[in-house]
Amino acid sequence: MSEPLARPWEVLRRREIADARPWLRLWAEDLRLPDGRTVEGFYTIEAPDYAVIVALTPDGRVVVERNYKHGPRRVCLNLPAGYLEPGEAPLAAARRELREETGYAADEWTPLGQFAESGNRGAGTAHLFLARGARRVAEPDAGDLEALEIGLMPFDDLLDAVREGDVAVLSIAAAIGLAAVALQQ
Amino acid sequence: MSEPLARPWEVLRRREIADARPWLRLWAEDLRLPDGRTVEGFYTIEAPDYAVIVALTPDGRVVVERNYKHGPRRVCLNLPAGYLEPGEAPLAAARRELREETGYAADEWTPLGQFAESGNRGAGTAHLFLARGARRVAEPDAGDLEALEIGLMPFDDLLDAVREGDVAVLSIAAAIGLAAVALQQ
Repeated sequence: MSEPLARPWEVLRRREIADARPWLRLWAEDLRLPDGRTVEGFYTIEAPDYAVIVALTPDGRVVVERNYKHGPRRVCLNLPAGYLEPGEAPLAAARRELREETGYAADEWTPLGQFAESGNRGAGTAHLFLARGARRVAEPDAGDLEALEIGLMPFDDLLDAVREGDVAVLSIAAAIGLAAVALQQ
Repeated sequence: MSEPLARPWEVLRRREIADARPWLRLWAEDLRLPDGRTVEGFYTIEAPDYAVIVALTPDGRVVVERNYKHGPRRVCLNLPAGYLEPGEAPLAAARRELREETGYAADEWTPLGQFAESGNRGAGTAHLFLARGARRVAEPDAGDLEALEIGLMPFDDLLDAVREGDVAVLSIAAAIGLAAVALQQ
């Protein structure tokens, strides 16, 4: 498809609504569209980028976590994930989070893509990774708020878990779906 | 995995930081964790739920859109998607958005899951659908801000587009990945 119509919007001005750094900043922006129309008070969120990891052991099991997430407000099946530290590259963050949260390391890393959490608001970028050859090398050392249970789950069971509603967070579902695509090639 | 540790957090109190309805509401919550610790000022976002549709024609092509998205701040490949109206069921919203944005209808609908956009903040739930047997029945009638170009793309090309970075929004990537999984069963 060509793109004569699809062009960026121009930010005319922006007003900070809330400064809750390091967690988020909320802005209201006034925008000019390519056709000349203006939009006032379009809400944008700045938030830290994060990494999500599908770590696969040599026998085809995925390192999973079961914990409470306050976004969906329920206990659900999750993957190792965490915020990038300031200046940290996505892959470095993914390696660090995998090791800190689960005690696992892996040698073969495949990026599955990077995606804005919200199509309209932004809200940080999710960096998704597939890590093959995962092996336990240390004790977990998370320090996060969530009480974590770590386990290993065959990849097909993980797909069943998505179908059955046990996965409740969008970035985790995206990582699992795109990992399935990558593993079938 | 059993779950002796993974239990919900209790909301002790919440303070509204910004009321930007109908687009979003930002809250700071004080929480009590299962181990008794308290957390002050955990940010939560209320935002409308939305539907995303992978609509497949009988000859195996997907109804795609190319438009500018202000979240990732770029022109990118997208799918039909939109907010649920108040009281509207997710599937009804998906049918409506598909028809309004693209002029397509479909008879066979498969839910691919529902996921909180943000694991920590909430920010609305994405309802993902696969629609088979899609056919054009009307002219598009979107009225959205985005200047849209609509096209048909073979499903394998869509997977290539994700790999090549042409998809920039998390919910779109999740819908494509989970549709690929569903189509292979």
